[in-house]
Amino acid sequence: MFRFRLDIEYDGRGFCGWQRQTSCIPTVQATIEDAIEKFCGHPVTIVGAGRTDTGVHAMAQVAHVDLPEQEDGFRISQALNFYLRDRGVSILKAEPVPSTFHARFSALKRTYIYRIINRRAPLTFDRGRAWDITAPLDVPAMQHAAQYFLGKHDFSSFRAVSCQSTMPIKTITHSAIKCHDHTIHYEVSARSFLHHQVRVMVGTLVYVGLGKCAPDSIIATLEAGNRAAAGMTAPPHGLYLAHVAYSLEDPT
Amino acid sequence: MFRFRLDIEYDGRGFCGWQRQTSCIPTVQATIEDAIEKFCGHPVTIVGAGRTDTGVHAMAQVAHVDLPEQEDGFRISQALNFYLRDRGVSILKAEPVPSTFHARFSALKRTYIYRIINRRAPLTFDRGRAWDITAPLDVPAMQHAAQYFLGKHDFSSFRAVSCQSTMPIKTITHSAIKCHDHTIHYEVSARSFLHHQVRVMVGTLVYVGLGKCAPDSIIATLEAGNRAAAGMTAPPHGLYLAHVAYSLEDPT
Repeated sequence: MFRFRLDIEYDGRGFCGWQRQTSCIPTVQATIEDAIEKFCGHPVTIVGAGRTDTGVHAMAQVAHVDLPEQEDGFRISQALNFYLRDRGVSILKAEPVPSTFHARFSALKRTYIYRIINRRAPLTFDRGRAWDITAPLDVPAMQHAAQYFLGKHDFSSFRAVSCQSTMPIKTITHSAIKCHDHTIHYEVSARSFLHHQVRVMVGTLVYVGLGKCAPDSIIATLEAGNRAAAGMTAPPHGLYLAHVAYSLEDPT
Repeated sequence: MFRFRLDIEYDGRGFCGWQRQTSCIPTVQATIEDAIEKFCGHPVTIVGAGRTDTGVHAMAQVAHVDLPEQEDGFRISQALNFYLRDRGVSILKAEPVPSTFHARFSALKRTYIYRIINRRAPLTFDRGRAWDITAPLDVPAMQHAAQYFLGKHDFSSFRAVSCQSTMPIKTITHSAIKCHDHTIHYEVSARSFLHHQVRVMVGTLVYVGLGKCAPDSIIATLEAGNRAAAGMTAPPHGLYLAHVAYSLEDPT
């Protein structure tokens, strides 16, 4: 078998998340797997770097797939894009990789961007593509608060109650709020995240921006180790899987 | 009567352009006029700064409307946005203006932005919101060519064959290509434009970018005074009415 890496962009509005479900609802994984089956003639399973939730977007999701024959990467991307046309998924690149490459386990860093549009007027272009918040947000306070997430912490307060991970300790290597006109972007990077972690972090930063809590309250919220201590879970449609970084060496 | 200025954002995908038509097709003007009628109880006519074509977007169209009573601007915008919800049109601002203000004739400068995405992969988020060109474009050549549009010229080569204007001489005060990753933006400003002028200018810049003609061929094309001398008309869905500037004084 020959392994290929796929770099994928998708508009999450049309999908019930990344992961294939047993029912026939449209998911990104199932849509791409169906396109690959049309291309190579037999069913395949692809492995993605991150399992995005319903409504969450990707600028550059990464997946791998094993095919029985060596193929030209460009030809694969062209063929898959033909079968995926009008589906809101686009294969940005396909390339052969060593069989040791694993889209999920080889990933060294995942970067998410969360988009907020802070204005009174309803959204047009960005409907379903950003969280629209009409009350004014204190951006400097949010920028201050975002710094407290940096480093290694127990993120038990910042995950879905249903999250099953036995490892709630994560290391945040980048956490920054950027603002341009009415658009606020939160950028965050780590090797991996807990379920809903970024969305709860964003919901808590918004609480700070609304003046409901102080920027340094993030410290106590991290220490609480209790989901009830953090803010709301931000809606999925503002979230984008923006980048997945891999090492050059074979991971072990 | 009391005059109000409306600043309007719209996604052109759902509309057959700005101008109200005699048939029942959805236009931006008709959609907003219907919303105002619901608000004030009688039919109105609004005047826009620019008549955008089918599929063309606006980040900040400006219109004026006369209402029988003085109203609070914020209340108008909230009410209209209520009636416009889910229609792809948003009133960014409504404010009282002197009766001498005219959205079309008082405008001193109109700025359009044209978005091109130059990559092989099909678009997802930007489908219907940019011109996707898969062949590589020579951006420095396009930047060079864009400079030749600056100043006062006869734009007869750069307008729709059907354009009725008896004044084909226009003065371009800003003409610049900006590039970020795969996204190319063309920004252009003038007091007014001919029908399809920006789209023919963009189509001609793309011919330069594809190497079909040299940057300085723009000079000869301007001098030709003949639509056949210019490039194709770029598709409408990459075009955005980005800004309309007004003087502080009463225009005469």
